[in-house]
Amino acid sequence: MALMLAVQLDKRRVYVRDVRRPKRPEGYALIRLLVGGICNTDLELQRGYYGFSGIPGHEFVGEVVEADHANLLGRRVVGEINLACRQCEWCQRGLGRHCPKRTVLGIVRYPGAFRELLTLPEVNLHVVPNSISNEEAVFVEPLAATCEILDQATIPEGAGIAVLGDGKLGLLIAQVLTARCMNVHLYGRHPNKLKIAARAGVETFLATKRLPSSAYDWVVEAAGSPHGLSQAIRMVRPRGSVFMKSTIHGTPSLDTARVIVNEIALIGSRCGRFEPALNLLRARSIKVLDMISDSFPLSQAPRAFQRAAERGILKVVLNAG
Amino acid sequence: MALMLAVQLDKRRVYVRDVRRPKRPEGYALIRLLVGGICNTDLELQRGYYGFSGIPGHEFVGEVVEADHANLLGRRVVGEINLACRQCEWCQRGLGRHCPKRTVLGIVRYPGAFRELLTLPEVNLHVVPNSISNEEAVFVEPLAATCEILDQATIPEGAGIAVLGDGKLGLLIAQVLTARCMNVHLYGRHPNKLKIAARAGVETFLATKRLPSSAYDWVVEAAGSPHGLSQAIRMVRPRGSVFMKSTIHGTPSLDTARVIVNEIALIGSRCGRFEPALNLLRARSIKVLDMISDSFPLSQAPRAFQRAAERGILKVVLNAG
Repeated sequence: MALMLAVQLDKRRVYVRDVRRPKRPEGYALIRLLVGGICNTDLELQRGYYGFSGIPGHEFVGEVVEADHANLLGRRVVGEINLACRQCEWCQRGLGRHCPKRTVLGIVRYPGAFRELLTLPEVNLHVVPNSISNEEAVFVEPLAATCEILDQATIPEGAGIAVLGDGKLGLLIAQVLTARCMNVHLYGRHPNKLKIAARAGVETFLATKRLPSSAYDWVVEAAGSPHGLSQAIRMVRPRGSVFMKSTIHGTPSLDTARVIVNEIALIGSRCGRFEPALNLLRARSIKVLDMISDSFPLSQAPRAFQRAAERGILKVVLNAG
Repeated sequence: MALMLAVQLDKRRVYVRDVRRPKRPEGYALIRLLVGGICNTDLELQRGYYGFSGIPGHEFVGEVVEADHANLLGRRVVGEINLACRQCEWCQRGLGRHCPKRTVLGIVRYPGAFRELLTLPEVNLHVVPNSISNEEAVFVEPLAATCEILDQATIPEGAGIAVLGDGKLGLLIAQVLTARCMNVHLYGRHPNKLKIAARAGVETFLATKRLPSSAYDWVVEAAGSPHGLSQAIRMVRPRGSVFMKSTIHGTPSLDTARVIVNEIALIGSRCGRFEPALNLLRARSIKVLDMISDSFPLSQAPRAFQRAAERGILKVVLNAG
């Protein structure tokens, strides 16, 4: 029996173990993991979000080792994380990301990418151009989630937009919106993280006690804390929009009266299309390598998870090369 | 010294007392109250919302007794409740309802309509056509707030839309959206209230424990309870919109993860333009008289407030004729 290494998350504990190699169903590719990225969602899963138990991981770049389509063989790929039914109304509308029957790689009823070999439907895969390194490609999934904002609303060029949070997602969002010629103000608590955005041309602000009130028509909440949304609601102007990006475990309480009186729109925003993300990386419009704080071999995933949860740490990647 | 009767709300207690007749500033009309309507917001003010203390009342119809513009004299009028600066960016954009310097009739730093004589800027006034009775005209303000939904989003004709709550606002919303050819499902807990909507052609449902999940692209939350918004978030389909209409005292907690994963838009919705509301009443497109549960003279305002807070009661009006 062929065994391989996989990361396991059980009852909030992360460990590695040997599991059987997955069988490749028809229409699926078998993919050898090259690099995986630990996302805040993985850390939230560890805190009990979704009551998750299994193999985590949804940010990855890998090499196709078996596939129906021969032109995929040997290619480096990234993969969309929603496995949709491809039959329902959502799938027909090209919104398999909302298919009610979907499973989600490493999040909902589908074993994740943090294992030596994984399977995904070939339709989920995107070939990575040679000019994009493995360490860059691992950012395609969170970058796609960032670009989703641009698919959800028409934000005018030059618009003032506040991004709350200088974590991984906040830094990506600030960079992408700046690349799209918006006037971004990034608010964060970590001078070293803000520096990364500043180097990319983003105007940054150390978030002190008092953030500006009713100051922006557009606010992106990526603080990753229960208070982030309340802050965003205070910062947005009447009739403005707040994009909600932080999936956190729990049910934060909200000043709904302010939302109503000021007629604010709160817009949930999740996964996005991979194409714009690959285009941004290919065009070198944004820099992601600065955001890698540390790197571990797959076998040291428990240490990597621990490291990723430390204060001040950005992206931690797992190498399975 | 000329005195007149006014309702007073202090430390959650409602009483009537004699106060001085208000002086009419330039640009303002002096208006004799004919009928006032008690709104849920008034009851929330009594519960401590906004830390209100003063003369409440913002739904009214009255007769102009003094004004700069002679053509207003003796006319029946309703009045927009936001007193805006008319200078700022919001006011220039015709959105004085969001003027940051505004006061609000009977809600924010401006004495309300529940007094024998009140003043309001003449620009706030709309003359009531003769075909609309006083008892109907008192519904113009909440009707305008209902119509605001139609100004905030383009809901296609025939769209399925759930309205949560069979209180005053829910009944108005269900009727207006039905009049605009939408396929409305009204969910409420009171068979007698649902009947009013059913008579106006609305499809009604007694809200039992289990409401349909992910079933509507559009949901209007008008339940007036902290749980209403959570229910609306469960009922709306991915990528759908929830209009938030219930201003309640407190900060309800929210399943933000569901909002994000399903990419739901939560849209705060408050006051609206008066013109569409007057047009609906003039065209007899909706029925409001069914919704008047009781009527008291202004001098019996404490009893009227008590009555308005009783379970099963809809609009209670104050007569000062």
